[in-house]
Amino acid sequence: MVSNGKISMSVIKRLPRYYRFLGELKKSGKLIISSNELSMRMKLTASQIRQDLNCFGGFGQQGYGYNVEQLYIEIGKILGVDRTCKTILVGAGNLGKAIASHMSFESRGFSLTGIFDSNKELIGTTLKDIEIFDIDKLDEFCLENKPEVAVLCIPSSVASTIVDKLIDLGITGFWNFTHFDIAAKYPEVTVENVHLNDSLMTLSYQMKNK
Amino acid sequence: MVSNGKISMSVIKRLPRYYRFLGELKKSGKLIISSNELSMRMKLTASQIRQDLNCFGGFGQQGYGYNVEQLYIEIGKILGVDRTCKTILVGAGNLGKAIASHMSFESRGFSLTGIFDSNKELIGTTLKDIEIFDIDKLDEFCLENKPEVAVLCIPSSVASTIVDKLIDLGITGFWNFTHFDIAAKYPEVTVENVHLNDSLMTLSYQMKNK
Repeated sequence: MVSNGKISMSVIKRLPRYYRFLGELKKSGKLIISSNELSMRMKLTASQIRQDLNCFGGFGQQGYGYNVEQLYIEIGKILGVDRTCKTILVGAGNLGKAIASHMSFESRGFSLTGIFDSNKELIGTTLKDIEIFDIDKLDEFCLENKPEVAVLCIPSSVASTIVDKLIDLGITGFWNFTHFDIAAKYPEVTVENVHLNDSLMTLSYQMKNK
Repeated sequence: MVSNGKISMSVIKRLPRYYRFLGELKKSGKLIISSNELSMRMKLTASQIRQDLNCFGGFGQQGYGYNVEQLYIEIGKILGVDRTCKTILVGAGNLGKAIASHMSFESRGFSLTGIFDSNKELIGTTLKDIEIFDIDKLDEFCLENKPEVAVLCIPSSVASTIVDKLIDLGITGFWNFTHFDIAAKYPEVTVENVHLNDSLMTLSYQMKNK
């Protein structure tokens, strides 16, 4: 279903939103949705929605609307949520703990297979039924289990050293909660940054200027 | 220093990044930076940077570059980090706990003044030296303290009810970690959403399609 052309990042960034809205529609028992209805929920024009979905081969029939379940499944496949990309979490402090407990990695295309920290008090305890290992065991674990993705919930000050190590060990994708600019040093690596501070400051700006 | 024209959201979204990069430059002892150097770090064109900063009145002198400290302070003021917007956190589970401990609200324009949860085991304990109150105390607290912003770290399933209540109590800004679409119901309210699932799925797409 995926066309071979290069899809723009702005379309890709909208796909998880489509997936989320369609998931809610599916839950509410809705079977068919028109691009007009979808556009109202998504706050995009109907033509924008048709254009977006056409990037991936199109899913609707003119005049009939989209089959909610089918579209949900297909967008899920495009997003890769039907795979399981082996993933490790580095940093099991407050933030790492929240991310591990709060996120449903398995239904998002990832399987969390290892958790690492340097804090002796955490090592040996479990998080989501996964034992927290000493960060010194990273080499051994990666050689054996070959994870592809690392979730970084470590202090920004140690990020540079740990990223170097992880890339040496074969990690090719990062979900990065630190401020360290991985892509600047390793442009070939896939990085999705979560900059919570930036988000909070955007809110600050909006509160100040309303 | 702020011009009165309407600033586009894409410029506003870049401001926290400028602020972050300038903060790092300042820390590293850098006094002056040219728009060329800044552009390489920010991965924007130098002309884009000059344009962005001109939206707010411009800060540089042609040929001299920008004074790092001054630009940092001015952008901070534009972002409103020199104020303190009274803020409450609703939901002190894993995610709320991480957000409260991890984020430096005070240096981002917010002062965290109250934390609320419905879990009896959490009520009365403290988080960042703030006592966690029963959610039933929300009315009383808000009438007395008049917070403007709420950070929502509650399950999406209860978000609708709690948002209704918070808006009744005078909250006009939300940092929203739930999936509930606050802006759809209350378009007049300021909302900054953090959709961690969307971010994770964007990474999934990129890992699948590299």
